[in-house]
Amino acid sequence: MSLRYALLAILTAAPLTGYETAKRFEGSVGHVWHAPDSQIYPELRRMETEGLVQGREERWGPNSTKTRYYITAEGESAFRGWMSEPLRYAPWRDVAHMQAAYFEWTDPDSVRMHLQQHAQHYEEQIAQWSSQVQAIESHEHPMIAARLQRYPAEQHARIVAFKSFAYEGLIRLAQAEVDWANSGLALLEELEAQDAEGAG
Amino acid sequence: MSLRYALLAILTAAPLTGYETAKRFEGSVGHVWHAPDSQIYPELRRMETEGLVQGREERWGPNSTKTRYYITAEGESAFRGWMSEPLRYAPWRDVAHMQAAYFEWTDPDSVRMHLQQHAQHYEEQIAQWSSQVQAIESHEHPMIAARLQRYPAEQHARIVAFKSFAYEGLIRLAQAEVDWANSGLALLEELEAQDAEGAG
Repeated sequence: MSLRYALLAILTAAPLTGYETAKRFEGSVGHVWHAPDSQIYPELRRMETEGLVQGREERWGPNSTKTRYYITAEGESAFRGWMSEPLRYAPWRDVAHMQAAYFEWTDPDSVRMHLQQHAQHYEEQIAQWSSQVQAIESHEHPMIAARLQRYPAEQHARIVAFKSFAYEGLIRLAQAEVDWANSGLALLEELEAQDAEGAG
Repeated sequence: MSLRYALLAILTAAPLTGYETAKRFEGSVGHVWHAPDSQIYPELRRMETEGLVQGREERWGPNSTKTRYYITAEGESAFRGWMSEPLRYAPWRDVAHMQAAYFEWTDPDSVRMHLQQHAQHYEEQIAQWSSQVQAIESHEHPMIAARLQRYPAEQHARIVAFKSFAYEGLIRLAQAEVDWANSGLALLEELEAQDAEGAG
Protein backbone atom coordinates (compact mmCIF):
# COMPACT_ATOMS: atom_id res chain seq x y z
CA MET A 1 0.00 0.00 0.00
CA SER A 2 2.92 2.37 0.61
CA LEU A 3 3.66 2.45 -3.12
CA ARG A 4 0.18 3.84 -3.72
CA TYR A 5 0.79 6.76 -1.34
CA ALA A 6 4.22 7.39 -2.83
CA LEU A 7 2.58 7.65 -6.27
CA LEU A 8 -0.16 9.93 -4.97
CA ALA A 9 2.57 12.07 -3.38
CA ILE A 10 4.26 12.53 -6.75
CA LEU A 11 1.03 13.31 -8.54
CA THR A 12 0.24 16.09 -6.04
CA ALA A 13 3.16 17.94 -7.66
CA ALA A 14 2.08 17.54 -11.29
CA PRO A 15 -0.02 15.32 -13.58
CA LEU A 16 2.33 12.84 -15.26
CA THR A 17 2.29 10.08 -17.83
CA GLY A 18 3.14 6.56 -16.66
CA TYR A 19 6.63 6.90 -18.07
CA GLU A 20 7.17 10.30 -16.43
CA THR A 21 5.83 8.96 -13.14
CA ALA A 22 8.34 6.11 -13.18
CA LYS A 23 11.22 8.50 -14.02
CA ARG A 24 10.19 11.11 -11.42
CA PHE A 25 9.65 8.38 -8.87
CA GLU A 26 13.21 7.19 -9.27
CA GLY A 27 14.58 10.71 -8.87
CA SER A 28 12.50 11.69 -5.83
CA VAL A 29 10.37 9.53 -3.52
CA GLY A 30 12.09 6.40 -4.87
CA HIS A 31 15.11 7.38 -2.74
CA VAL A 32 12.97 6.75 0.33
CA TRP A 33 10.61 4.09 -0.99
CA HIS A 34 12.19 2.04 -3.74
CA ALA A 35 9.89 0.41 -6.30
CA PRO A 36 10.68 -1.03 -9.75
CA ASP A 37 8.84 0.26 -12.87
CA SER A 38 7.12 -3.14 -13.13
CA GLN A 39 5.18 -2.29 -9.95
CA ILE A 40 4.47 1.33 -10.82
CA TYR A 41 2.52 0.89 -14.08
CA PRO A 42 -0.02 -1.67 -12.81
CA GLU A 43 -0.50 0.28 -9.58
CA LEU A 44 -1.35 3.43 -11.56
CA ARG A 45 -3.96 1.44 -13.50
CA ARG A 46 -5.44 0.03 -10.28
CA MET A 47 -5.56 3.54 -8.84
CA GLU A 48 -7.40 4.69 -11.94
CA THR A 49 -9.98 1.90 -11.53
CA GLU A 50 -10.48 2.98 -7.92
CA GLY A 51 -10.93 6.61 -8.89
CA LEU A 52 -7.81 7.94 -7.11
CA VAL A 53 -6.36 9.21 -10.37
CA GLN A 54 -7.92 10.02 -13.69
CA GLY A 55 -6.16 9.04 -16.92
CA ARG A 56 -6.60 11.40 -19.85
CA GLU A 57 -5.50 10.42 -23.35
CA GLU A 58 -3.07 12.82 -25.01
CA ARG A 59 -1.81 12.95 -28.57
CA TRP A 60 1.72 11.55 -28.78
CA GLY A 61 3.32 11.90 -32.19
CA PRO A 62 1.24 11.70 -35.36
CA ASN A 63 -0.41 8.30 -34.82
CA SER A 64 -0.45 7.55 -31.16
CA THR A 65 -1.65 8.70 -27.77
CA LYS A 66 -0.48 8.36 -24.20
CA THR A 67 -2.25 8.55 -20.86
CA ARG A 68 -1.55 11.36 -18.42
CA TYR A 69 -2.61 10.74 -14.84
CA TYR A 70 -4.27 13.49 -12.79
CA ILE A 71 -4.84 13.06 -9.07
CA THR A 72 -8.59 13.31 -8.31
CA ALA A 73 -10.26 14.91 -5.28
CA GLU A 74 -10.76 11.35 -4.05
CA GLY A 75 -7.04 10.65 -4.49
CA GLU A 76 -6.11 13.79 -2.52
CA SER A 77 -8.52 12.81 0.18
CA ALA A 78 -7.06 9.26 0.38
CA PHE A 79 -3.58 10.79 0.66
CA ARG A 80 -4.67 13.16 3.44
CA GLY A 81 -6.45 10.31 5.20
CA TRP A 82 -3.29 8.20 5.22
CA MET A 83 -1.39 11.22 6.57
CA SER A 84 -3.63 11.50 9.61
CA GLU A 85 -3.59 7.78 10.54
CA PRO A 86 -0.86 6.44 12.86
CA LEU A 87 1.72 4.27 11.05
CA ARG A 88 2.07 0.60 11.77
CA TYR A 89 5.74 -0.22 12.23
CA ALA A 90 6.94 -3.44 10.61
CA PRO A 91 9.13 -5.75 12.70
CA TRP A 92 12.86 -5.36 12.16
CA ARG A 93 14.66 -7.14 9.31
CA ASP A 94 18.25 -6.25 8.84
CA VAL A 95 20.60 -8.73 7.29
CA ALA A 96 23.84 -6.82 7.99
CA HIS A 97 23.20 -6.73 11.74
CA MET A 98 21.94 -10.30 11.70
CA GLN A 99 25.15 -11.44 10.08
CA ALA A 100 27.33 -9.37 12.41
CA ALA A 101 25.88 -11.21 15.42
CA TYR A 102 27.65 -14.36 14.18
CA PHE A 103 30.97 -12.93 12.98
CA GLU A 104 32.85 -15.50 15.07
CA TRP A 105 32.00 -17.92 12.22
CA THR A 106 34.37 -16.23 9.83
CA ASP A 107 37.95 -15.00 9.86
CA PRO A 108 39.00 -11.46 10.82
CA ASP A 109 39.68 -10.56 7.19
CA SER A 110 36.08 -11.33 6.21
CA VAL A 111 34.79 -9.37 9.19
CA ARG A 112 36.95 -6.43 8.12
CA MET A 113 35.66 -6.73 4.53
CA HIS A 114 32.04 -6.72 5.70
CA LEU A 115 32.49 -3.73 7.99
CA GLN A 116 34.42 -1.71 5.41
CA GLN A 117 31.78 -2.52 2.80
CA HIS A 118 29.06 -1.49 5.25
CA ALA A 119 30.71 1.85 5.97
CA GLN A 120 31.29 2.46 2.26
CA HIS A 121 27.73 1.62 1.30
CA TYR A 122 26.31 4.08 3.80
CA GLU A 123 28.87 6.76 2.95
CA GLU A 124 27.62 6.55 -0.63
CA GLN A 125 24.04 6.84 0.60
CA ILE A 126 24.98 9.92 2.63
CA ALA A 127 26.51 11.51 -0.48
CA GLN A 128 23.41 10.72 -2.53
CA TRP A 129 20.94 11.95 0.08
CA SER A 130 23.02 15.07 0.80
CA SER A 131 22.85 16.04 -2.85
CA GLN A 132 19.07 15.58 -2.68
CA VAL A 133 18.91 17.93 0.31
CA GLN A 134 20.95 20.48 -1.60
CA ALA A 135 18.70 20.25 -4.69
CA ILE A 136 15.63 20.58 -2.47
CA GLU A 137 16.89 23.58 -0.52
CA SER A 138 18.06 25.41 -3.65
CA HIS A 139 14.66 24.61 -5.29
CA GLU A 140 16.59 23.15 -8.25
CA HIS A 141 15.07 19.72 -7.82
CA PRO A 142 12.57 19.38 -10.72
CA MET A 143 9.84 17.96 -8.49
CA ILE A 144 10.27 20.77 -5.96
CA ALA A 145 10.20 23.34 -8.75
CA ALA A 146 6.95 21.84 -10.12
CA ARG A 147 5.44 21.65 -6.65
CA LEU A 148 6.31 25.24 -5.68
CA GLN A 149 4.77 26.48 -8.90
CA ARG A 150 1.53 24.71 -8.06
CA TYR A 151 1.04 25.73 -4.43
CA PRO A 152 0.69 29.21 -2.89
CA ALA A 153 3.79 31.00 -1.61
CA GLU A 154 2.82 30.79 2.06
CA GLN A 155 3.14 26.99 1.85
CA HIS A 156 6.60 26.98 0.26
CA ALA A 157 8.58 27.09 3.49
CA ARG A 158 7.00 23.93 4.86
CA ILE A 159 7.02 22.07 1.53
CA VAL A 160 10.78 22.52 1.37
CA ALA A 161 11.40 22.08 5.10
CA PHE A 162 9.63 18.71 5.37
CA LYS A 163 11.38 17.28 2.33
CA SER A 164 14.80 18.25 3.66
CA PHE A 165 13.80 16.92 7.05
CA ALA A 166 12.93 13.49 5.58
CA TYR A 167 16.33 13.17 3.89
CA GLU A 168 18.15 14.50 6.93
CA GLY A 169 16.63 11.61 8.88
CA LEU A 170 18.05 9.14 6.39
CA ILE A 171 21.43 10.81 6.62
CA ARG A 172 21.34 10.44 10.42
CA LEU A 173 20.60 6.72 10.02
CA ALA A 174 23.34 6.22 7.47
CA GLN A 175 25.79 8.06 9.73
CA ALA A 176 24.82 5.75 12.60
CA GLU A 177 25.60 2.78 10.30
CA VAL A 178 29.01 4.22 9.37
CA ASP A 179 29.83 4.88 13.05
CA TRP A 180 28.74 1.37 13.96
CA ALA A 181 30.91 -0.22 11.26
CA ASN A 182 33.88 1.83 12.46
CA SER A 183 33.28 0.78 16.06
CA GLY A 184 33.27 -2.82 14.76
CA LEU A 185 36.65 -2.34 13.14
CA ALA A 186 37.96 -1.09 16.50
CA LEU A 187 36.40 -4.08 18.27
CA LEU A 188 38.06 -6.43 15.79
CA GLU A 189 41.48 -4.96 16.55
CA GLU A 190 40.84 -5.36 20.25
CA LEU A 191 39.88 -9.01 19.83
CA GLU A 192 42.92 -9.66 17.69
CA ALA A 193 45.17 -8.03 20.29
CA GLN A 194 43.61 -10.24 22.98
CA ASP A 195 44.21 -13.33 20.85
CA ALA A 196 47.83 -12.33 20.29
CA GLU A 197 48.25 -11.89 24.07
CA GLY A 198 46.60 -15.25 24.70
CA ALA A 199 48.94 -16.89 22.22
CA GLY A 200 52.02 -15.04 23.57
CA MET B 1 17.36 -16.61 1.80
CA SER B 2 18.24 -14.60 4.91
CA LEU B 3 15.79 -16.66 6.96
CA ARG B 4 17.76 -19.77 6.08
CA TYR B 5 20.98 -18.27 7.48
CA ALA B 6 19.18 -17.02 10.57
CA LEU B 7 17.95 -20.59 11.19
CA LEU B 8 21.40 -22.06 10.58
CA ALA B 9 22.78 -19.49 13.05
CA ILE B 10 20.41 -20.71 15.75
CA LEU B 11 21.16 -24.35 15.10
CA THR B 12 24.89 -23.74 15.51
CA ALA B 13 24.08 -23.16 19.19
CA ALA B 14 22.05 -26.35 19.78
CA PRO B 15 19.95 -28.94 17.92
CA LEU B 16 16.29 -27.98 18.31
CA THR B 17 12.85 -29.23 17.43
CA GLY B 18 10.75 -27.16 15.04
CA TYR B 19 8.78 -25.74 17.94
CA GLU B 20 11.92 -24.89 19.93
CA THR B 21 13.47 -23.31 16.84
CA ALA B 22 10.48 -21.02 16.42
CA LYS B 23 10.52 -20.07 20.13
CA ARG B 24 14.29 -19.50 20.26
CA PHE B 25 14.11 -17.59 17.00
CA GLU B 26 11.66 -15.15 18.47
CA GLY B 27 13.84 -14.61 21.55
CA SER B 28 17.13 -14.16 19.72
CA VAL B 29 17.85 -13.63 16.02
CA GLY B 30 14.17 -12.76 15.44
CA HIS B 31 14.94 -9.36 17.06
CA VAL B 32 17.18 -8.64 14.08
CA TRP B 33 15.47 -10.66 11.36
CA HIS B 34 11.78 -11.05 12.04
CA ALA B 35 9.99 -14.10 10.59
CA PRO B 36 6.62 -15.64 11.48
CA ASP B 37 6.39 -19.31 12.55
CA SER B 38 4.53 -20.02 9.30
CA GLN B 39 7.78 -19.36 7.41
CA ILE B 40 10.06 -21.17 9.85
CA TYR B 41 8.58 -24.68 9.71
CA PRO B 42 8.55 -25.07 5.90
CA GLU B 43 12.03 -23.57 5.63
CA LEU B 44 13.39 -26.15 8.12
CA ARG B 45 11.86 -28.91 5.98
CA ARG B 46 13.39 -27.46 2.81
CA MET B 47 16.75 -27.24 4.55
CA GLU B 48 16.42 -30.89 5.51
CA THR B 49 15.73 -31.84 1.89
CA GLU B 50 18.82 -29.94 0.84
CA GLY B 51 20.97 -31.64 3.49
CA LEU B 52 21.73 -28.49 5.53
CA VAL B 53 20.09 -29.96 8.62
CA GLN B 54 19.29 -33.50 9.61
CA GLY B 55 15.99 -34.28 11.31
CA ARG B 56 16.06 -37.08 13.86
CA GLU B 57 12.86 -38.54 15.28
CA GLU B 58 12.59 -38.47 19.06
CA ARG B 59 10.10 -40.07 21.37
CA TRP B 60 7.57 -37.48 22.62
CA GLY B 61 5.16 -38.81 25.22
CA PRO B 62 3.95 -42.39 25.14
CA ASN B 63 2.57 -42.51 21.60
CA SER B 64 4.21 -39.85 19.56
CA THR B 65 7.51 -38.56 18.22
CA LYS B 66 8.93 -35.20 17.22
CA THR B 67 11.77 -34.18 14.91
CA ARG B 68 14.90 -32.58 16.28
CA TYR B 69 17.02 -30.72 13.72
CA TYR B 70 20.82 -31.00 13.79
CA ILE B 71 22.97 -28.75 11.63
CA THR B 72 25.07 -30.89 9.25
CA ALA B 73 28.66 -30.31 8.10
CA GLU B 74 27.10 -29.11 4.84
CA GLY B 75 24.90 -26.67 6.79
CA GLU B 76 27.89 -25.29 8.68
CA SER B 77 29.77 -24.92 5.45
CA ALA B 78 26.85 -23.06 3.81
CA PHE B 79 26.71 -20.75 6.83
CA ARG B 80 30.45 -20.06 6.67
CA GLY B 81 30.21 -19.54 2.90
CA TRP B 82 27.52 -16.90 3.35
CA MET B 83 29.69 -15.25 6.00
CA SER B 84 32.58 -14.78 3.60
CA GLU B 85 30.51 -13.37 0.69
CA PRO B 86 29.88 -9.61 0.43
CA LEU B 87 26.27 -8.64 1.23
CA ARG B 88 24.02 -7.16 -1.39
CA TYR B 89 22.24 -4.12 0.04
CA ALA B 90 18.58 -3.78 -0.80
CA PRO B 91 17.33 -0.37 -1.93
CA TRP B 92 15.82 1.79 0.79
CA ARG B 93 12.17 1.44 1.79
CA ASP B 94 11.10 3.44 4.75
CA VAL B 95 7.51 4.50 5.09
CA ALA B 96 8.00 6.87 8.06
CA HIS B 97 10.55 8.99 6.20
CA MET B 98 8.52 8.77 3.00
CA GLN B 99 5.49 10.13 4.80
CA ALA B 100 7.48 12.85 6.58
CA ALA B 101 8.55 14.26 3.20
CA TYR B 102 4.90 15.26 2.60
CA PHE B 103 3.90 16.46 6.06
CA GLU B 104 2.60 19.72 4.56
CA TRP B 105 -0.46 17.64 3.56
CA THR B 106 -1.63 17.32 7.13
CA ASP B 107 -2.17 19.63 10.09
CA PRO B 108 0.46 20.32 12.77
CA ASP B 109 -1.34 18.11 15.30
CA SER B 110 -1.05 15.09 13.01
CA VAL B 111 2.61 15.84 12.36
CA ARG B 112 3.17 16.05 16.12
CA MET B 113 1.33 12.74 16.63
CA HIS B 114 3.48 11.01 13.97
CA LEU B 115 6.73 12.32 15.36
CA GLN B 116 5.84 11.49 18.96
CA GLN B 117 4.77 8.01 17.91
CA HIS B 118 8.02 7.58 15.98
CA ALA B 119 10.13 8.59 18.98
CA GLN B 120 8.13 6.32 21.27
CA HIS B 121 8.37 3.33 18.95
CA TYR B 122 12.14 3.59 18.76
CA GLU B 123 12.50 4.27 22.48
CA GLU B 124 10.71 0.97 23.06
CA GLN B 125 13.05 -0.74 20.63
CA ILE B 126 16.03 0.71 22.47
CA ALA B 127 14.70 -0.67 25.77
CA GLN B 128 14.14 -4.10 24.20
CA TRP B 129 17.54 -4.26 22.52
CA SER B 130 19.32 -2.92 25.60
CA SER B 131 17.88 -5.73 27.68
CA GLN B 132 19.16 -8.17 25.03
CA VAL B 133 22.65 -6.70 25.32
CA GLN B 134 22.48 -7.08 29.09
CA ALA B 135 21.36 -10.73 28.87
CA ILE B 136 24.12 -11.43 26.34
CA GLU B 137 26.89 -9.80 28.35
CA SER B 138 25.83 -11.49 31.59
CA HIS B 139 25.63 -14.83 29.69
CA GLU B 140 22.10 -15.22 31.05
CA HIS B 141 20.54 -15.32 27.62
CA PRO B 142 19.54 -18.99 27.08
CA MET B 143 20.96 -19.09 23.54
CA ILE B 144 24.26 -17.59 24.69
CA ALA B 145 24.43 -20.08 27.58
CA ALA B 146 23.83 -22.98 25.15
CA ARG B 147 26.38 -21.62 22.72
CA LEU B 148 29.12 -21.05 25.29
CA GLN B 149 28.66 -24.59 26.54
CA ARG B 150 29.19 -25.92 23.05
CA TYR B 151 32.27 -23.96 21.95
CA PRO B 152 35.78 -23.82 23.50
CA ALA B 153 36.57 -21.14 26.08
CA GLU B 154 39.00 -19.24 23.83
CA GLN B 155 36.08 -18.41 21.50
CA HIS B 156 33.77 -17.10 24.22
CA ALA B 157 34.99 -13.50 24.14
CA ARG B 158 34.23 -13.06 20.45
CA ILE B 159 30.94 -14.97 20.57
CA VAL B 160 29.68 -12.54 23.20
CA ALA B 161 31.35 -9.45 21.73
CA PHE B 162 29.85 -9.83 18.24
CA LYS B 163 26.36 -10.43 19.55
CA SER B 164 26.50 -7.32 21.72
CA PHE B 165 27.98 -5.43 18.80
CA ALA B 166 25.05 -6.37 16.53
CA TYR B 167 22.48 -5.09 19.03
CA GLU B 168 24.50 -1.98 19.77
CA GLY B 169 24.25 -1.16 16.08
CA LEU B 170 20.48 -1.39 16.25
CA ILE B 171 20.45 0.81 19.34
CA ARG B 172 22.50 3.44 17.45
CA LEU B 173 19.95 3.37 14.61
CA ALA B 174 17.00 3.62 16.95
CA GLN B 175 18.66 6.52 18.75
CA ALA B 176 19.14 8.29 15.40
CA GLU B 177 15.38 7.81 14.78
CA VAL B 178 14.50 9.28 18.18
CA ASP B 179 16.83 12.25 17.62
CA TRP B 180 15.35 12.81 14.16
CA ALA B 181 11.78 12.77 15.49
CA ASN B 182 12.74 15.26 18.18
CA SER B 183 14.39 17.53 15.62
CA GLY B 184 11.12 17.32 13.67
CA LEU B 185 9.16 18.49 16.69
CA ALA B 186 11.52 21.48 16.95
CA LEU B 187 11.10 22.18 13.22
CA LEU B 188 7.34 22.09 13.62
CA GLU B 189 7.46 24.71 16.37
CA GLU B 190 9.65 26.89 14.19
CA LEU B 191 7.22 26.64 11.26
CA GLU B 192 4.29 27.43 13.55
CA ALA B 193 6.10 30.46 14.92
CA GLN B 194 6.77 31.67 11.35
CA ASP B 195 3.10 31.20 10.47
CA ALA B 196 2.06 33.17 13.54
CA GLU B 197 4.45 35.96 12.54
CA GLY B 198 3.12 35.91 8.97
CA ALA B 199 -0.44 36.15 10.27
CA GLY B 200 0.43 38.84 12.84
